[in-house]
Amino acid sequence: MIEKLALIGIGLIGSSIARGARAAGLARTIAIATRREETLAEARALGLGDIYTTDAAEAVEGADLVILCSPVGTYETIARQIAGALKPGAIVSDVGSVKAHVIASIAPHMPDNVHLVPGHPLAGTEHSGPSAGFADLFQNRWCVLTPTEGTDPEAVETLSAFWRGLGSNVEIMEAGHHDLVLAITSHVPHLVAYNIVGTVADLEAHTQSEVIKFSASGFRDFTRIAASDPVMWRDVFLTNRDAVLEMLGRFLEDLSVLQRAVRMGDGEALEALFTRTRAIRRSIIAAGQETAAPDFGRQHGAAKPDAE
Amino acid sequence: MIEKLALIGIGLIGSSIARGARAAGLARTIAIATRREETLAEARALGLGDIYTTDAAEAVEGADLVILCSPVGTYETIARQIAGALKPGAIVSDVGSVKAHVIASIAPHMPDNVHLVPGHPLAGTEHSGPSAGFADLFQNRWCVLTPTEGTDPEAVETLSAFWRGLGSNVEIMEAGHHDLVLAITSHVPHLVAYNIVGTVADLEAHTQSEVIKFSASGFRDFTRIAASDPVMWRDVFLTNRDAVLEMLGRFLEDLSVLQRAVRMGDGEALEALFTRTRAIRRSIIAAGQETAAPDFGRQHGAAKPDAE
Ligand SMILES: NC(=O)c1ccc[n+]([C@@H]2O[C@H](COP(=O)([O-])OP(=O)(O)OC[C@H]3O[C@@H](n4cnc5c(N)ncnc54)[C@H](OP(=O)(O)O)[C@@H]3O)[C@@H](O)[C@H]2O)c1
Ligand SMILES: NC(=O)c1ccc[n+]([C@@H]2O[C@H](COP(=O)([O-])OP(=O)(O)OC[C@H]3O[C@@H](n4cnc5c(N)ncnc54)[C@H](OP(=O)(O)O)[C@@H]3O)[C@@H](O)[C@H]2O)c1
Repeated sequence: MIEKLALIGIGLIGSSIARGARAAGLARTIAIATRREETLAEARALGLGDIYTTDAAEAVEGADLVILCSPVGTYETIARQIAGALKPGAIVSDVGSVKAHVIASIAPHMPDNVHLVPGHPLAGTEHSGPSAGFADLFQNRWCVLTPTEGTDPEAVETLSAFWRGLGSNVEIMEAGHHDLVLAITSHVPHLVAYNIVGTVADLEAHTQSEVIKFSASGFRDFTRIAASDPVMWRDVFLTNRDAVLEMLGRFLEDLSVLQRAVRMGDGEALEALFTRTRAIRRSIIAAGQETAAPDFGRQHGAAKPDAE
Repeated sequence: MIEKLALIGIGLIGSSIARGARAAGLARTIAIATRREETLAEARALGLGDIYTTDAAEAVEGADLVILCSPVGTYETIARQIAGALKPGAIVSDVGSVKAHVIASIAPHMPDNVHLVPGHPLAGTEHSGPSAGFADLFQNRWCVLTPTEGTDPEAVETLSAFWRGLGSNVEIMEAGHHDLVLAITSHVPHLVAYNIVGTVADLEAHTQSEVIKFSASGFRDFTRIAASDPVMWRDVFLTNRDAVLEMLGRFLEDLSVLQRAVRMGDGEALEALFTRTRAIRRSIIAAGQETAAPDFGRQHGAAKPDAE
């Protein structure tokens, strides 16, 4: 058990860690720091921790495990703030969606006697803030840790055990490789989703209202991830630029080929691609990373709020 | 009540109509025609109708309402096959995802004494075949009808009442306008989803397996619609080419701007777009076309099939 856990940032991810750690008895004391008083009050009302403060340095005092749970663009400032207050032997980690940049912005500020073990739980929803979290968000999801060479294996194991306690499977990976894999798994999908929703937002009002009405025919699937937190995602694209541009380049190259097949009426090429892609979803379902229920298990025939 | 309903094609959509019509008592006799014996046997085993045949002309004999429920590329041939067997005064409709092309391929073959009223229910899942259907698929979804000028209003009203009986809201629209709206609402989203899943399918095996593992971070959302029926979607892109290329052009133009913002590190532009797109999802939820539950209401913490 961790004697004292400090969470800096208490949104969707931070509050899910707090809830999960409490539920599984992974930490004796949970200290919560966040930027705004009102978020802190919300966390307190939800009973997410034991110590509440807007001062990150105060939260990390005496903590055995510190996890940064704010947008990655805030990490460098927070690292500076907490550096002097860290207990010798403390593990400093994070949940940021980008890893090479995180190491570059935190590591230089860390005292020699603490262990930096960056992390990224592959789990989330499109909602934000302390009320959006839930204890089993990480159940059966992966958590990637990207320690640099020479990191104390015991610190890595302590953090791994913590994530396993939250229900996750842990994978150790090199930071740069993580960033490339996540560029195509998460960042480019978000960029493409934001983009198509943006295209619709630019249509004239009447057509836009029709798109909204008829969105069950495909479009609405994209709107979920395009409703994710704007600041978090701005920071992802600012800090994983090269990998995102590389994978976006491949996506665009493929899309040009597909565009040409549509223009040429090349039915064979279209059918061949559309057949090949089916296998990928089956693999994801077989890997336990997706529901096999049709339509994500969405409720069908649900009441239509604006018609009743 | 319809005395005799004939469904040509009995996959996801056809079988959902059969089930819904039976459940709501909308038709006295349901005749089912499909191409392959094995699909017909499946439909019979499921008890979807009263008359089963592989001969479309036989199915439509004496029918008051005929609905084509096969891929749009098959419509012209089917129209030729059934033309001579249609009862005077019969309504001929369809469920095809494209409308201008449907009219062009069916209308020339129809006798003067039948009513052609094309239709498109805006509902579906990624599954196919007679077993994939369910009675409330159309509940609270829209069904668009695109009758040409001069169509008998009574025939349009009979068909509208049928769809309302299945739980749908009916909208009348010009075929070309339907095709443009659906290009951005449904066809381009499917193309983009197929494309990104294709990009992943081209990655080398090790990276691909990582993408599958970590797919809960965004990618898996795209795989659902990219698992849709390849033949149906091939036909959509072959028959709605101009509208798809027009909307794909807008999407690509916007994506170039976004790509540039990433390259330049323009955080303000990124955050502004990501903020604007949130509103669209809220509108879709308010319009009753999407669940408000986080993550589409997917089951969280579900067992991991391959680990247990
Ligand atoms: N959402 C996902 O799906 C997901 C998945 C995996 C990883 N992540 C990573 O998790 C991190 C947090 O994401 P989230 O979804 O939990 O975001 P969120 O719900 O928007 O919460 C962000 C939290 O960070 C706090 N914060 C913002 N600026 C801060 C600052 N300068 N100092 C201290 N706290 C600050 C916010 O506090 P105030 O309200 O007080 O401003 C809030 O408590 C990000 O790094 C993201 O990359 C997210
Ligand atoms: N899926 C959706 O989400 C959705 C939504 C709205 C509209 N639609 C439209 O609905 C139609 C059917 O889609 P679906 O999803 O129901 O497809 P599906 O599940 O794949 O079923 C297609 C049916 O068409 C039959 N068929 C194929 N070729 C035929 C032919 N030459 N003659 C007679 N029957 C033939 C198939 O029969 P065999 O098995 O005997 O070959 C099967 O019964 C398409 O036009 C599509 O555009 C689909």
